[in-house]
Amino acid sequence: MRVAMNFDLVIRNGTVATASDVFKADVGVRGGRIAALGEGLAAGREEIDAAGLLVLPGGVDGHVHFDQPTGDESVMADDFLTGTRSAAFGGTTTVLPFACQEKGKTLRAAVDDYHRRAAGKPLIDYAFHLIVTDPTEQVLGQELPALIREGYTSFKIYMTYDALKLNDRQILEVLDIARSEGAMVMMHAENADCIAWLTEKLERAGQTAPFFHGVSRPRVAEREATHRAISLAELVDVPILIVHVSGADAVEQIRWAQGRGLRIYAETCPQYLFLTADDLGGEGFEGAKCVCSPPPRDAANQRVIWDGLTGGAFQVFSSDHAPFRFDGPGGKKVHGEQAPFRCVPNGIPGVETRLPLLFSEGVMKGRMELTKFVELTSANPARMYGLHPRKGTIAVGADADIALWDPSRTVTITNGILHHNVDYTPYEGIEVTGWPVVTLSRGEVICRDGELLAEPGRGAFLPCGLPAPARPKGSPAPVLPF
Amino acid sequence: MRVAMNFDLVIRNGTVATASDVFKADVGVRGGRIAALGEGLAAGREEIDAAGLLVLPGGVDGHVHFDQPTGDESVMADDFLTGTRSAAFGGTTTVLPFACQEKGKTLRAAVDDYHRRAAGKPLIDYAFHLIVTDPTEQVLGQELPALIREGYTSFKIYMTYDALKLNDRQILEVLDIARSEGAMVMMHAENADCIAWLTEKLERAGQTAPFFHGVSRPRVAEREATHRAISLAELVDVPILIVHVSGADAVEQIRWAQGRGLRIYAETCPQYLFLTADDLGGEGFEGAKCVCSPPPRDAANQRVIWDGLTGGAFQVFSSDHAPFRFDGPGGKKVHGEQAPFRCVPNGIPGVETRLPLLFSEGVMKGRMELTKFVELTSANPARMYGLHPRKGTIAVGADADIALWDPSRTVTITNGILHHNVDYTPYEGIEVTGWPVVTLSRGEVICRDGELLAEPGRGAFLPCGLPAPARPKGSPAPVLPF
Amino acid sequence: MRVAMNFDLVIRNGTVATASDVFKADVGVRGGRIAALGEGLAAGREEIDAAGLLVLPGGVDGHVHFDQPTGDESVMADDFLTGTRSAAFGGTTTVLPFACQEKGKTLRAAVDDYHRRAAGKPLIDYAFHLIVTDPTEQVLGQELPALIREGYTSFKIYMTYDALKLNDRQILEVLDIARSEGAMVMMHAENADCIAWLTEKLERAGQTAPFFHGVSRPRVAEREATHRAISLAELVDVPILIVHVSGADAVEQIRWAQGRGLRIYAETCPQYLFLTADDLGGEGFEGAKCVCSPPPRDAANQRVIWDGLTGGAFQVFSSDHAPFRFDGPGGKKVHGEQAPFRCVPNGIPGVETRLPLLFSEGVMKGRMELTKFVELTSANPARMYGLHPRKGTIAVGADADIALWDPSRTVTITNGILHHNVDYTPYEGIEVTGWPVVTLSRGEVICRDGELLAEPGRGAFLPCGLPAPARPKGSPAPVLPF
Amino acid sequence: MRVAMNFDLVIRNGTVATASDVFKADVGVRGGRIAALGEGLAAGREEIDAAGLLVLPGGVDGHVHFDQPTGDESVMADDFLTGTRSAAFGGTTTVLPFACQEKGKTLRAAVDDYHRRAAGKPLIDYAFHLIVTDPTEQVLGQELPALIREGYTSFKIYMTYDALKLNDRQILEVLDIARSEGAMVMMHAENADCIAWLTEKLERAGQTAPFFHGVSRPRVAEREATHRAISLAELVDVPILIVHVSGADAVEQIRWAQGRGLRIYAETCPQYLFLTADDLGGEGFEGAKCVCSPPPRDAANQRVIWDGLTGGAFQVFSSDHAPFRFDGPGGKKVHGEQAPFRCVPNGIPGVETRLPLLFSEGVMKGRMELTKFVELTSANPARMYGLHPRKGTIAVGADADIALWDPSRTVTITNGILHHNVDYTPYEGIEVTGWPVVTLSRGEVICRDGELLAEPGRGAFLPCGLPAPARPKGSPAPVLPF
Repeated sequence: MRVAMNFDLVIRNGTVATASDVFKADVGVRGGRIAALGEGLAAGREEIDAAGLLVLPGGVDGHVHFDQPTGDESVMADDFLTGTRSAAFGGTTTVLPFACQEKGKTLRAAVDDYHRRAAGKPLIDYAFHLIVTDPTEQVLGQELPALIREGYTSFKIYMTYDALKLNDRQILEVLDIARSEGAMVMMHAENADCIAWLTEKLERAGQTAPFFHGVSRPRVAEREATHRAISLAELVDVPILIVHVSGADAVEQIRWAQGRGLRIYAETCPQYLFLTADDLGGEGFEGAKCVCSPPPRDAANQRVIWDGLTGGAFQVFSSDHAPFRFDGPGGKKVHGEQAPFRCVPNGIPGVETRLPLLFSEGVMKGRMELTKFVELTSANPARMYGLHPRKGTIAVGADADIALWDPSRTVTITNGILHHNVDYTPYEGIEVTGWPVVTLSRGEVICRDGELLAEPGRGAFLPCGLPAPARPKGSPAPVLPF
Repeated sequence: MRVAMNFDLVIRNGTVATASDVFKADVGVRGGRIAALGEGLAAGREEIDAAGLLVLPGGVDGHVHFDQPTGDESVMADDFLTGTRSAAFGGTTTVLPFACQEKGKTLRAAVDDYHRRAAGKPLIDYAFHLIVTDPTEQVLGQELPALIREGYTSFKIYMTYDALKLNDRQILEVLDIARSEGAMVMMHAENADCIAWLTEKLERAGQTAPFFHGVSRPRVAEREATHRAISLAELVDVPILIVHVSGADAVEQIRWAQGRGLRIYAETCPQYLFLTADDLGGEGFEGAKCVCSPPPRDAANQRVIWDGLTGGAFQVFSSDHAPFRFDGPGGKKVHGEQAPFRCVPNGIPGVETRLPLLFSEGVMKGRMELTKFVELTSANPARMYGLHPRKGTIAVGADADIALWDPSRTVTITNGILHHNVDYTPYEGIEVTGWPVVTLSRGEVICRDGELLAEPGRGAFLPCGLPAPARPKGSPAPVLPF
Repeated sequence: MRVAMNFDLVIRNGTVATASDVFKADVGVRGGRIAALGEGLAAGREEIDAAGLLVLPGGVDGHVHFDQPTGDESVMADDFLTGTRSAAFGGTTTVLPFACQEKGKTLRAAVDDYHRRAAGKPLIDYAFHLIVTDPTEQVLGQELPALIREGYTSFKIYMTYDALKLNDRQILEVLDIARSEGAMVMMHAENADCIAWLTEKLERAGQTAPFFHGVSRPRVAEREATHRAISLAELVDVPILIVHVSGADAVEQIRWAQGRGLRIYAETCPQYLFLTADDLGGEGFEGAKCVCSPPPRDAANQRVIWDGLTGGAFQVFSSDHAPFRFDGPGGKKVHGEQAPFRCVPNGIPGVETRLPLLFSEGVMKGRMELTKFVELTSANPARMYGLHPRKGTIAVGADADIALWDPSRTVTITNGILHHNVDYTPYEGIEVTGWPVVTLSRGEVICRDGELLAEPGRGAFLPCGLPAPARPKGSPAPVLPF
Repeated sequence: MRVAMNFDLVIRNGTVATASDVFKADVGVRGGRIAALGEGLAAGREEIDAAGLLVLPGGVDGHVHFDQPTGDESVMADDFLTGTRSAAFGGTTTVLPFACQEKGKTLRAAVDDYHRRAAGKPLIDYAFHLIVTDPTEQVLGQELPALIREGYTSFKIYMTYDALKLNDRQILEVLDIARSEGAMVMMHAENADCIAWLTEKLERAGQTAPFFHGVSRPRVAEREATHRAISLAELVDVPILIVHVSGADAVEQIRWAQGRGLRIYAETCPQYLFLTADDLGGEGFEGAKCVCSPPPRDAANQRVIWDGLTGGAFQVFSSDHAPFRFDGPGGKKVHGEQAPFRCVPNGIPGVETRLPLLFSEGVMKGRMELTKFVELTSANPARMYGLHPRKGTIAVGADADIALWDPSRTVTITNGILHHNVDYTPYEGIEVTGWPVVTLSRGEVICRDGELLAEPGRGAFLPCGLPAPARPKGSPAPVLPF
């Protein structure tokens, strides 16, 4: 019964980190999974010398958009191949894009379509969040529960965007299903009516440059929706995760709710640490490169977001990678450079830069422990979406999804070194210290020193378990897997 | 260079938990340290079958009082032998008692004396916190920095108790040393003058029964001191850890400070989850058994403390074990059963019951994940006091301090089954589910099924490193141990 | 140019109170207005000896419903005659009922209709609030500004009730008009979708007794809408007045907004001080007598409302008199005693008991100064709705709207002594100390010792000025009337 | 019994304002008191035509220092003559300076000494606050209660300054007396130890210029003491008034306390609206002119103070006039221009500029109603210190303490136009609109158009009644003066 300690691969002499610990150990991989951690493990069929390197769990990016139909003339530039390629080079080994229901159609149709879009392309493992845009009785009563049981255990709902948004009543009904099924609901919290009202005011005043995109989505509109999301979740008594939180006002609401004992979780993204409203300005149409929602705020606000990351308000750090080219069809200029900001596709690329940016400014600059970095970027997203402990950690039994980081390597980010299919990066010119030099997925080296070593389609779809944080409060903790 | 995978001991088939992960793995021990975690590890010289058991890091109790001179006629009932014995049977493998400076004497004298008291007795490893009661120029300028560098990296200061308390100016000076040396300051936050004023009022009114101990230390007195502690730490720009937080009002202050980005850490204890002010009542002198400071509050307050534990306000869960016998010399009745509450020794025993109580009500009742339990009771205290990752986790390279828990064992707590030298437990009659059945210290089985297998004196003194959370903000994170 | 000091009426020897002062003075009335306050005024043609009495400004009830079309089978029991009669006997001399726009019709139609309903009936002076239910472009662009300039300077909008509610976009547009015109917007803040969702849940569970009316409108639904109202007003940068605030959670939001410098005003009502959710229970259908929205909460919540009144969170104390008979057509039983709570007309009578209840429990029990009582019940509503200083004070030039109170008279409230057309009072059996014994309107004694001395139709319509609190911040204060 | 309406003086055609109302009326004065307010009052022996002028209650400055022994080499430049002269020209008719107990001596000695200092000098009426610096058993048990009953019903205590400060225990005991006697306690809330610690740090670093006075008294030191003051008052269950609040952090604490239903009152001063920390900088020793405690903060902080004034956090607006000459003996340079900031006398002059500054920036710029101005500067201080309604309003029976303001007069403040004995004003060069052109005290014109018309010593000492806001909560409101 006792298997011999023969390994397919041993990663030797590195410094391993989990969300809890940092320690020196060899990592023995067998069958794509971590079979052992130890000092002086027996030789593997393959060996990687990780001396001087950090051995981190591959990143789990809990919020990316790949090849997602937009319903208009804009086109996402990354599909499951280029998107996962970019992720892999950035040290990320699991992504969760969104299968988005089209209004009037079923959720199942969206899932099926999305599997077709993925087919043959992914380089790394992936799961699907659902986006519920049309919660009919049929969707709520049958489809959604069925899909949850099949492993689609998280779904996003929108409080803004005409094509996507739910009203409060619909939100309550979706939350109610999440509660009874134990699923996790992600919420985009901005008040649609506030934005529409401001947008029209701005347009009437001729203030349509990309800069005014930020003006049209003020912090108060995010705060209002955040408070409302919290209140609806409190009424239903269900946890929620508020995604891409950008403003200090929203953070205040989240802390207030957490302090009252509510299970309100929150995510933020690199754009709220590294960009400001000024980046939407600039000459001509240049600011369109940074048009995303919610928009970046100001420098004082960035400090609040940093404090929220290090101090516990946020559990998850994602990219919200939403790839539109600056030039080219379906991109930022889809309606021309004179188009009002309302017509500029919303979203920025970031799946590849997410980890290096946070590593450099967070860990290397002393703002957070390495364990906290792993927690925010890998372990917690895996937990929140039912992928832990298979993903998000370096532990016996986990998938050998690993990134080897060289903490001393200094890199200047330019779009030329990135692997997405977008023609710019909002982080052009930022110098970072620390870089993922080797990425492994299920024990297989897929990137090494800038070289791609994997075949499209090798990435596997991951049915998700029920997320532990979404369990009804007071239910027995599912901690005893035997 | 590659050592053979021969183990002194293998714990096989258990479910291992850290602050981050829960996974099935064998644990290989060599030289008292964890040498490997893996599936199907090679045979050890010894083997323990942990099938059906949880393999947890031994508890780290960051707040215990053993054989500490009290300066009056009261006498602590537990010394380093009985105290560590009780700890070990409760699944705890590291304790941090206090070397308390006597006013007018040096800190060094306290440390030397405390080492003498420990000599030949401990069954498990231990470190010392210091208590600074007389921060003279000599103490601040020379002794304290020297002791920190020798491994006494945390110290407690009191805002109450005539024999111990510092004024604000002294607190600032101690905090300033902590800041420059990177040490961790623990604060007992109650306003001494409020308590003295109320105590005299109560005594004049003849309200001297143990019940009035609680009345004399209202939540507002704790809140005030908590806010003051936060303010002083904010002024000095240094993290602090507020110990044994009992009241919802203090929790509000702590959350407020954390929400403002301050590094304010906090500890709570079983007495604030399992006892209430009513327990200080009862007939005659019975309530004296629950006299401790701050006192237990009410049921609504308990819920706030639970929310603080699960929601992140608290980082550490300790016992504040302060052992006085109910009967017998130096105990609760040292001044007779008619003595006013002011004369009743403050403190209750709890080093052995700390973990089972939280495990049962927290993990088994679904209030918290097993990982959170490990974090609060083992990993975080180790981190806070510079013992991590040697203590507080199950990771390669860590000491093999391990408790095997049977999650299905139901136990009714009575003093008869406990191993301290106190003649009562405040938790008499509480039934818990889950119990530590085997305890190992540095790979050695020291308790098994109620039997003690270790020799006094085997526990080692632990010089502590600088606690990571006490690093100056923005300093490089000490994450790269090579 | 100097008129002789001859008075139509002198009220002599009383103790006068305003929102600022309490002083002994005679009050000289001429031409229906206060011509002088002084010691030993010359004789008037009539004299009233007010020795031992308080001479208070007549109450201004800023929130009553008289003869308002309900759009369904329910019928309000009080019209402008019985409503103003009840008001007058309760010491109130000005009322502000609502001209409610019918969806699909104009505001002007509502105003015209409401004037017809009033014609020939009022015993005291009155102004109209508008209710905007259908803010078409025509309404916003033309009608509303025109009506504001004609003296309809305050309007109410609803966040709940299908027949009345506006969505956020509509609210923003109405607020924007209020901002540009300097009008005051009153908001009914409850989340309609939360209530509908809960109501259906309760109905499916067969929980339809009046008691469940309260359950269907929890504090969180009020809090959410309150936060949203605040946010929308903040975005538009306009003051609002949140009416009939019932819950501690909403009060927390209001204080939070006020503390941030926002001009958020708030009103509460007797039902939130004197009733609790238990009053909706009781045997059979009895609880229907207390069905109103928002519903009464619990005793702890009452204390928060009291603190809000005495401590400044609330500016206005109104009755929200909404008169439905318990028996009889159009009353609480309009759909029978088995009808689900959803079908019970919402509202309770209170225009006559408002002042005696607050006077007795507030002033006589020492919770508030007499000046505060006058401020909350008379001066502030007059200010908020542009009627000050003509109404709401006893000052030279003000209308001689005065109530003489006997502070020593003890009265047990029963429906038999009240003068509305409703067949019950929710305050049956409450004993109060202090009672208005004489009421004057524009110098005319209209009630004395329970006797009505006025003719229907004598009350005059009051066009309202622009409310000072609704001025744009930073605009010159309109303080210099010369 | 009815006196004829003959007046000593009639102020005719003005616009009268109280804390509640603004109205046109003639004011009839008889025997130094207001005998009537009315339209077209009968002729007085004297007449003043106030057409185009505002007729305001004379200001009540609840916080001034005149001729107060300092215990060191500094000397206050204003005595009861120059101080009241300056007050009168600034529209203030009542002042409350401080009789300060010398440690080791009795309160009575301070009171007697202060009466001697006042004798023959005051031009306007005055009352004494006490300063309790040495609360011996004798002081607490006998002197203080006796003095309260004699009309010294308010006293100030200090949390900082070595010569003045009380510890928490002493504060509790003083508060306890205030509670049982119904007196009002004013608290100077800054943490002495924080200031001393920072001051020594700064001095060691050679940072001793006046600018560093501000650095040595950071907002957190004020916030801490504010929270502590609130807590001590909450424990004793007694209202307090926190004086000269300067920082946004302290305001946050005050609002928090008020929101919890505590009777916490607060005062602020012109220096926190019109000066900033920069004013302590400047070349050489110039900044010493603005050295006061707490120090001015920054521009963002000023906005919070404004919001606190208009939004209800503050009840009282005082000058904290503490007059030291820039040049000359006992002045700012008493220890030379190289003296460290610690040696610079603390305090700035302001009794004359208090009202014009607030009138201009507050009322004329539209930040507050005229009624609010009267409330903050006159009515409320009179209420807080037991002088209402004799002082602080224009009502029948009140003293005819009146200031006639010309709201259209524009004045540039320079020290040359002021009437204090200080050789500078911190507000040099500020242009204000609105100025008091005539001041009356008890019906006597004492200043007119810059001319002094009164004799030294005409001002009367005012024994104070018990302040209404200091009544125990729930005690019958003293509203019925018959």
